[in-house]
Amino acid sequence: MIVTREFGDAGLLSLNQYTTHEWSVAEAAAGCARAGLRHIGLWRDKVAETGLAASARLCTENGLSVSSLCRGGMFPAATEAQRREKIADNRLAIDECAELGSDTLVLVCGGMAGCPLDDARRMVCDGIAAVAEYASRRGVRLGIEPLHPMFAADRSVINTLGQALDLADAIGAQGLGVIVDVYHVWWDPGLFTQIERAGGRIFGFHVSDWLTPPPDVLLGRGMMGDGVIDIRRIRAAVQSAGYAGPIECEIFNRKIWDTPGDEVLKLMKQRYLECC
Amino acid sequence: MIVTREFGDAGLLSLNQYTTHEWSVAEAAAGCARAGLRHIGLWRDKVAETGLAASARLCTENGLSVSSLCRGGMFPAATEAQRREKIADNRLAIDECAELGSDTLVLVCGGMAGCPLDDARRMVCDGIAAVAEYASRRGVRLGIEPLHPMFAADRSVINTLGQALDLADAIGAQGLGVIVDVYHVWWDPGLFTQIERAGGRIFGFHVSDWLTPPPDVLLGRGMMGDGVIDIRRIRAAVQSAGYAGPIECEIFNRKIWDTPGDEVLKLMKQRYLECC
Repeated sequence: MIVTREFGDAGLLSLNQYTTHEWSVAEAAAGCARAGLRHIGLWRDKVAETGLAASARLCTENGLSVSSLCRGGMFPAATEAQRREKIADNRLAIDECAELGSDTLVLVCGGMAGCPLDDARRMVCDGIAAVAEYASRRGVRLGIEPLHPMFAADRSVINTLGQALDLADAIGAQGLGVIVDVYHVWWDPGLFTQIERAGGRIFGFHVSDWLTPPPDVLLGRGMMGDGVIDIRRIRAAVQSAGYAGPIECEIFNRKIWDTPGDEVLKLMKQRYLECC
Repeated sequence: MIVTREFGDAGLLSLNQYTTHEWSVAEAAAGCARAGLRHIGLWRDKVAETGLAASARLCTENGLSVSSLCRGGMFPAATEAQRREKIADNRLAIDECAELGSDTLVLVCGGMAGCPLDDARRMVCDGIAAVAEYASRRGVRLGIEPLHPMFAADRSVINTLGQALDLADAIGAQGLGVIVDVYHVWWDPGLFTQIERAGGRIFGFHVSDWLTPPPDVLLGRGMMGDGVIDIRRIRAAVQSAGYAGPIECEIFNRKIWDTPGDEVLKLMKQRYLECC
């Protein structure tokens, strides 16, 4: 609440840097500072291009906290050796998250990878269980992000908030929770029950909108206010459940990616105030 | 089971006529006969082009039972007057279904139609309740088809089998059940529990496949065997729950629509035997 008062009503707003996909970490961090934002969500591929230490420094210099790092996960694979590699890569992601001073690694758990659906789901469970203690030791929380069921085959076999919480319950580790992204969960008839169930285990909240009809499967997300999601209601539920952290705007959309970043941030801030 | 023995292993296979979208009812009925099929699922727009009596006669002449009529539903609307029109149109669909000699009307319940999601869901409940007794009197069963969550905004606000069964329970009418379409429900972690719960209330079973990544939101369905769905497992569950009716192949896919119908039916039959 102090954050909110200090920086105006958009004090909780965070730019997930994939919303300005064409920007480097340096450009995104400077853009956030120009837009008066205090938080940024980083992606590993972008951080790798800039360097880990340089990325951390750029955020600090621009007065930004790193609300989360995207993404760990992607656990399912056809062979045991590949699955071990993926677990090792998740440990690296945890290290990177800690180095960036972020407390939350977002887990996009991974698709079927040629395996039966139930097997892939077990691999996700095993993979998270294998890195949870390491994350806890490094002070990094793991946020399981349920992805929309249309991504079940290729991106995540974890597709509802209830399923993500069941998974967290089954693993039972400290510092294991969920990310609520309105784009992925808005349709779920059990959404508000599961948000209440999640309580203090919500580690991140992402906003965008669902366009009708969606212009694309992967790059079809819309700016808040351009679609059908009742973002205010979901935000109220998430905050009632105890979430008080930054609100990341994460939009995969080719048209938005092709728009100059400063314009995107201006519109994002305006729509955040109007619709979130 | 008699059907299966009499016409070979593909004896339960039904062509949902949208799989051969460019064909009229006459062409589809003749095509089914040439392919040795015994069942066809019709669509109202196609039946309207041919005429109701003519469509019924064409099916009879070609030795086909009408496994279902697509589609009733589409209940949500912005005004009370529009909602009444939609209910009236559903009564017409029930009449058409009875005239065609089919016992099952498939309900694609309708999207948000500019309304809040919960309101749209209530309109679906009210709409089905308003026509259930009429359907029962005409000997037509209503099959609520949960649609994939990616269609929640524009096609159906009923998005899981559990939700469809909750809806049927809430209405509590005779002859009200569900349609299980593998394309819409395959990803659902609660699928097999809900199929068991459905028991004798499964009024239809539809097959196709989920391509990875989907080439399109609406027209991205694949031929059985070209995607990731474990159709055999879902079929076994549906039949264990008591479903013994036809198995409709329903594929919305531009490439398949552009392929000559006889080729589509040949491949459909082959893939049905191999994958379903």
